[in-house]
Amino acid sequence: MHKTNATNKSPRGNFFEDFKIGQVFQHATPRTLSDGDSALYIALTGARQVLHSAQPVAHAMGYQNRTIDDLLAFHIALGKTVPDISINAIANLGYAQVQFVRPIYAGDTISAKSTVVGLKQNSDGKSGIVYVQCEALNQDHQVVISWIRWVMVRKSNLDTPAPETVIPELSKVVNAKHLNIPSNIEYDGFDTSITGSSFVWDDYEIGEVINHPSGMTVDESDHTLATKLYQNPARLHFDASKSTYGKRLVFGGHVMSVCRALSYEGLENALSIAAINGGAHCNPTFGGDTLYAHSEVLDRWEIPGRTDVGALRLRLIGVKEKPLRFLSDAASTINGKQSYNPNVVLDLDYTVLMPRR
Amino acid sequence: MHKTNATNKSPRGNFFEDFKIGQVFQHATPRTLSDGDSALYIALTGARQVLHSAQPVAHAMGYQNRTIDDLLAFHIALGKTVPDISINAIANLGYAQVQFVRPIYAGDTISAKSTVVGLKQNSDGKSGIVYVQCEALNQDHQVVISWIRWVMVRKSNLDTPAPETVIPELSKVVNAKHLNIPSNIEYDGFDTSITGSSFVWDDYEIGEVINHPSGMTVDESDHTLATKLYQNPARLHFDASKSTYGKRLVFGGHVMSVCRALSYEGLENALSIAAINGGAHCNPTFGGDTLYAHSEVLDRWEIPGRTDVGALRLRLIGVKEKPLRFLSDAASTINGKQSYNPNVVLDLDYTVLMPRR
Amino acid sequence: MHKTNATNKSPRGNFFEDFKIGQVFQHATPRTLSDGDSALYIALTGARQVLHSAQPVAHAMGYQNRTIDDLLAFHIALGKTVPDISINAIANLGYAQVQFVRPIYAGDTISAKSTVVGLKQNSDGKSGIVYVQCEALNQDHQVVISWIRWVMVRKSNLDTPAPETVIPELSKVVNAKHLNIPSNIEYDGFDTSITGSSFVWDDYEIGEVINHPSGMTVDESDHTLATKLYQNPARLHFDASKSTYGKRLVFGGHVMSVCRALSYEGLENALSIAAINGGAHCNPTFGGDTLYAHSEVLDRWEIPGRTDVGALRLRLIGVKEKPLRFLSDAASTINGKQSYNPNVVLDLDYTVLMPRR
Repeated sequence: MHKTNATNKSPRGNFFEDFKIGQVFQHATPRTLSDGDSALYIALTGARQVLHSAQPVAHAMGYQNRTIDDLLAFHIALGKTVPDISINAIANLGYAQVQFVRPIYAGDTISAKSTVVGLKQNSDGKSGIVYVQCEALNQDHQVVISWIRWVMVRKSNLDTPAPETVIPELSKVVNAKHLNIPSNIEYDGFDTSITGSSFVWDDYEIGEVINHPSGMTVDESDHTLATKLYQNPARLHFDASKSTYGKRLVFGGHVMSVCRALSYEGLENALSIAAINGGAHCNPTFGGDTLYAHSEVLDRWEIPGRTDVGALRLRLIGVKEKPLRFLSDAASTINGKQSYNPNVVLDLDYTVLMPRR
Repeated sequence: MHKTNATNKSPRGNFFEDFKIGQVFQHATPRTLSDGDSALYIALTGARQVLHSAQPVAHAMGYQNRTIDDLLAFHIALGKTVPDISINAIANLGYAQVQFVRPIYAGDTISAKSTVVGLKQNSDGKSGIVYVQCEALNQDHQVVISWIRWVMVRKSNLDTPAPETVIPELSKVVNAKHLNIPSNIEYDGFDTSITGSSFVWDDYEIGEVINHPSGMTVDESDHTLATKLYQNPARLHFDASKSTYGKRLVFGGHVMSVCRALSYEGLENALSIAAINGGAHCNPTFGGDTLYAHSEVLDRWEIPGRTDVGALRLRLIGVKEKPLRFLSDAASTINGKQSYNPNVVLDLDYTVLMPRR
Repeated sequence: MHKTNATNKSPRGNFFEDFKIGQVFQHATPRTLSDGDSALYIALTGARQVLHSAQPVAHAMGYQNRTIDDLLAFHIALGKTVPDISINAIANLGYAQVQFVRPIYAGDTISAKSTVVGLKQNSDGKSGIVYVQCEALNQDHQVVISWIRWVMVRKSNLDTPAPETVIPELSKVVNAKHLNIPSNIEYDGFDTSITGSSFVWDDYEIGEVINHPSGMTVDESDHTLATKLYQNPARLHFDASKSTYGKRLVFGGHVMSVCRALSYEGLENALSIAAINGGAHCNPTFGGDTLYAHSEVLDRWEIPGRTDVGALRLRLIGVKEKPLRFLSDAASTINGKQSYNPNVVLDLDYTVLMPRR
């Protein structure tokens, strides 16, 4: 019986031994963003952040138009890096220094680029950690988002010798002076009746905890639609047989987005995300899980040269099945290592911009 | 053990005792509508109404562009009122005098405002009925939709004395002379081959019943995507633990939209909705239910000063699981009170505009 | 007891005896396409084809803008023909000579028209085959897509005599010289780093098989959202009680779209679809099925007068539950008739355009 033989046209992605320090990837398929993406993002997450929803409000502050949601843009940019960086990943280990550099508008076309900045083979010789410094660029080749990410990637050829270990220095937090606030954007006179809350930067205190009152069940169609919208082709989100859990795993970025949307109630004036300092997807989320969100104010910064806007560093905890009674139940530190409550799915450290009084 | 204490930043919404006659709410988060919202609305409902689908058809009649679906705009406007008016509601009791005042286009930004026009505490002292007169405004501060709605809202502090009872006078029907038809919109020469049916206003008779032939199953993702698109944060639609049914309740407005879409087959030339006279969500709808629609012509009006367009007052009955054999099975009147068949989920009284021969 | 009587306003569609050779249908409800449709199509299918995703890439080649996905446009155009042609169909038997004549952009309005070109009553006298030649037109009355389709349609009045049998001559394949490539579109200098694969037309060989590595589960909400987006009202997709399978059937066009999206990995430079030569929906697909795709290069053509672009004739096999081990497992020929593996859901013969080296 004649059997046709398959050729090697379908991409195998990169394995640990394929990465070299300094290597640059220009990732495939630039993506033009549109009002359609924004409408879908609202439908998928329930987001109500005003800068992404209301053109006149954004315009009055100095933006050209309402902006594309920061996380929508980030997920799309990150999705572009997957085929080259993490299609053979075992685990997404972390993010650092995620900076939202410029506003993104409907009509902009985003492409992504990564540079390998760190490598460390695991002691079992079967996998290793790859650190990449990534940039999302718009059609004018301006950086719109930059970030560092590290993933654990399988080796394909176990005989390849281990590369020299290089671990990049990572900031634990993006310093207030590195936050990007275009000088033409004005928060003066921002009318908080537009967002439904009068609480502004001045009203939040370090250590303050906000238990956001709403919950949201994530169905299989929701998260797969979202992940396809982000053009993230990681297989375990779409095909249970590619997931070690035996069911489709919800993309961690989408969990982030749903929790950010839930956090609207209590953080109505957190108008945009300036940075993500770090984050952990502590436990998996699956279709059918109901998510709840809690926020803690980690820090509160003035912005150099500005009296109209300040930054809040927030911890966003996402929990499934039922809200935490106390934020301290989220995690405990055992022998110097964070140990998470099994229902905690997200522990995100990020920085938002808020108008001042 | 140290427990961080949550603060009161997350909104509690208003309880019955918080409402005062004459009080005005400027609701939060204006929303710019786009072609993305229209595409999603088509995907979520299967709507085929031509004024919302086809730019050249709408333009030829005098519209600037194809219009945003009347119900899509209404649901978004209504969603804006939820955090202030009905986040603590026990039940949505009714609508009256819903008037579609001006066409809405992609690019328009809608905000909403409510005035308390009626209050009546319930005899058990634990809740009361709040009547609000609402307006949706566009970016030019023009009223685009207006309506009255009443909801039963919980009391938080049961010791608050009952307010004076005020019940607004409500019209049972929006009179033909109050229907808004822009003078520049022309129905003359409307080509019915565009909609697939030659039946126009002249062909419908009072008492006539149309059994729309199609049915549509509503899945959990559909209705939650829709309700998030409408930015309606009422919790019982997203979180089974917040619903007295132990499962997520489908937003009644989305049931209305699906039934309106199903009614296309038999009402192809009902080009737009001019008014909603009243309506009841007779029984709950849940994910997995299959909806069917029946229409009855309640009345047929000429429009003062127009020979090219007429109005039909319709009753739209939405039924789950299987279509009714006879419309009279929908409800019976027992001791002066409507008693609905348990499968009837919607009884809507509304007015459409149709070209005349 | 008084029973209101339903009237005949709701359309019954056409039955076999209603079709006459030469009869022309102008199908209802033209549809303006938008960026919203494109965003939804990406979310529903995971498509990453660059001409539909990235405005600057399309523009650099000579297109006015990024184009509407070929299959999205085809499904919408086909959906328009359903109420007149196939609402009473028992089976969709085939397509031939599907030609993508002109690029379609956001803002274009598509309408559809069909001419009856063949009729053959079945021997049992209860149904017959209707062949239609169809065209999708844009707002400037230019043909954008043309195709032939044949469906088996029920008779309503079994006493109607059989029409004279007319079977149109169908090409098995759209010849390379009939493929439409606008003369202003240039593939010279196409930068394959944009798509992530350096394999171009020159690299594919006849007989070559590509096993696309990803799989995608199709949920009930996905396929019903897609079919509603396409405004295809065929009832068996939305209402299990209208499906002979006792569950909702996934629209075959959507299966085609998901498989085309999966085929990106290995056919990254198959920039657009020029023709569909034929296709079979071999077995039904249902919500919950996971789809995989395999491609075989059937033929490889130069395009007359062009050295920058070539055509590949491809066979796209869609399989549910698990990928085929060998493409030859898809179907065997028994007594001259194709017999499909029960997991094979799609066998599509189509032609793509690819840049040359």
